[in-house]
Amino acid sequence: MDRILLSCGNGGRENANLINNVFMKYFKDFAKYAFEDAGFFAGFSNKLSNDFAISTDSYTITPIFFPGGDIGKLSICGSCNDVAVSGAKPMYLTISFIIEEGFLVQDLEKIAKSMSEEMHKNNLTLLSADTKVVPKGSVEGVFINSTIIGKVEYKGLSAKNLKEDDVIILNAPIGSHGACIYCLRNNISLENNLQSDCASLWEMIEVLLKNNIEIHAIRDATRGGIAALLNEWANSSKKDIYINQNDILILDEVRGICEILGIEPYSLANEGVCAFALPESKANKALEILHNTNLGKDSRIIGRVCKNDLGNKVILQNTWGTKRYLEYPEGEILPRIC
Amino acid sequence: MDRILLSCGNGGRENANLINNVFMKYFKDFAKYAFEDAGFFAGFSNKLSNDFAISTDSYTITPIFFPGGDIGKLSICGSCNDVAVSGAKPMYLTISFIIEEGFLVQDLEKIAKSMSEEMHKNNLTLLSADTKVVPKGSVEGVFINSTIIGKVEYKGLSAKNLKEDDVIILNAPIGSHGACIYCLRNNISLENNLQSDCASLWEMIEVLLKNNIEIHAIRDATRGGIAALLNEWANSSKKDIYINQNDILILDEVRGICEILGIEPYSLANEGVCAFALPESKANKALEILHNTNLGKDSRIIGRVCKNDLGNKVILQNTWGTKRYLEYPEGEILPRIC
Repeated sequence: MDRILLSCGNGGRENANLINNVFMKYFKDFAKYAFEDAGFFAGFSNKLSNDFAISTDSYTITPIFFPGGDIGKLSICGSCNDVAVSGAKPMYLTISFIIEEGFLVQDLEKIAKSMSEEMHKNNLTLLSADTKVVPKGSVEGVFINSTIIGKVEYKGLSAKNLKEDDVIILNAPIGSHGACIYCLRNNISLENNLQSDCASLWEMIEVLLKNNIEIHAIRDATRGGIAALLNEWANSSKKDIYINQNDILILDEVRGICEILGIEPYSLANEGVCAFALPESKANKALEILHNTNLGKDSRIIGRVCKNDLGNKVILQNTWGTKRYLEYPEGEILPRIC
Repeated sequence: MDRILLSCGNGGRENANLINNVFMKYFKDFAKYAFEDAGFFAGFSNKLSNDFAISTDSYTITPIFFPGGDIGKLSICGSCNDVAVSGAKPMYLTISFIIEEGFLVQDLEKIAKSMSEEMHKNNLTLLSADTKVVPKGSVEGVFINSTIIGKVEYKGLSAKNLKEDDVIILNAPIGSHGACIYCLRNNISLENNLQSDCASLWEMIEVLLKNNIEIHAIRDATRGGIAALLNEWANSSKKDIYINQNDILILDEVRGICEILGIEPYSLANEGVCAFALPESKANKALEILHNTNLGKDSRIIGRVCKNDLGNKVILQNTWGTKRYLEYPEGEILPRIC
């Protein structure tokens, strides 16, 4: 590969190849937390303990305004969620804007307002910010980077920690964010109210963690959808994962868009969907708690972790008994989805 | 102002206006560290103490390769320096790439290699990374965000802390980075070896701080040059600052380029130049220490902090006794300089 392909940013196979084949060559000495949602570091007065989790993301979504959110809200929710699924309460953030010359000030204000609302919701402290303005054509619109630092409340969550016979719980219907952005890009107007599921997940996750339920891994299903999430889990934990297709909730609108565009809902991006891996014996208690939260009211068990007889595969089974591999997403799924 | 102007990113007056008039409206509750180089936070086991300093920056420089460095080296040095001038030893970092589809993989590798070398030099741990690839035309080349967390070794450094009769020390000749990029952009070929001064400053700063010399403020002179730095100091500390023009070192090549292009060296960006404000009684000891460091061997006293009789002004005086205000930079100085 001589040139970077669009698919290198898909959150799927090519993205992983770019990381492994290019970045890891130079960063391997540094990259203790590669393929995890966040990294960890300790307070200096307590060196034995990883007090903090940290995660960074740049947001390049287009269009910048969409039903259910905008690039500003997304930039706070998205990075908060990476920290939240690592068991940490979002506390501090840094923000960096790259703005195209000529960008409308009123649009920038709308974005800043959304960010501020989501920062209030998460009770964040802004520690550092940066603004770059680049000549017209050097960037399209506005890109935002956010880095969130959280206080670790629950230790040991990791993609590597899935255990045999763990069940997988999903909190919400999949694909709404991806389908919503697909519609806007393709000028498909819907007669319904499909919205991005963009939301901060910590509130829901915190309730579960505070109940001291044994949980092995949590991850949000963003770029590459649950297909990427489940394949990353299978690879990291060296397990097979069986998923019951009928237990995955998909809104009719999302299903319709997938049919129109010939795409799979499993690879569609989400911004308010996460998966939990936990022992089956704890699942009922977990579901009971999740069902009482706003973002977890549709939570369901969607599958189970098994020995890797098939070689770290994700297997999708439907009610008629048909099985197929749910593959790691490949190709250009949808650039600038987050 | 309806639209964002290129000058809003100049590190000078319009940049400050954008922050004050747009962002502060929404972020004022959060923005305890506005107009400082870094923010601070405490380890949770030691709530009284600000253990950590943090700073974020996005790098959009063009061209991405230049004499003395590249966007990769710059992205590590630049953010490390913001933390270093806050009295903190750079420790951890996060990186985020936004890459244009079609970008040459070999160029990305060169950039990653530069970053890795500078990360080794600073002994950094990478905690989180992110890669976005955007369609051709959505971004020009590659933009990099880096966020650095440092361990605070020396407390109380702040732009607000300049005291009357403090002297100002500058470590190196000014304007090399800005002049170097100007030449490349304007296809001015020089018969000399002008290089960007891009460098990590912590090593030099640490030596000084370890000698327990009383220092009131340190700041690196990046976008907007020493003109922006000194005006920010004058404003934040409510002092006038008198600068002796002849004590500011400027390389002949830089002076020549300024003459050709009709620009002032004081507004040119630097990436390895910083100023120290400290009591006059400590200046000789400080200079002795700095002269023994690689990046501080040309250190000189360039001026003095005074009562704000003129209203928080920076006054430039030459050997013939002529005085003039050194104003906060205005207008489009040079976009994409860092």
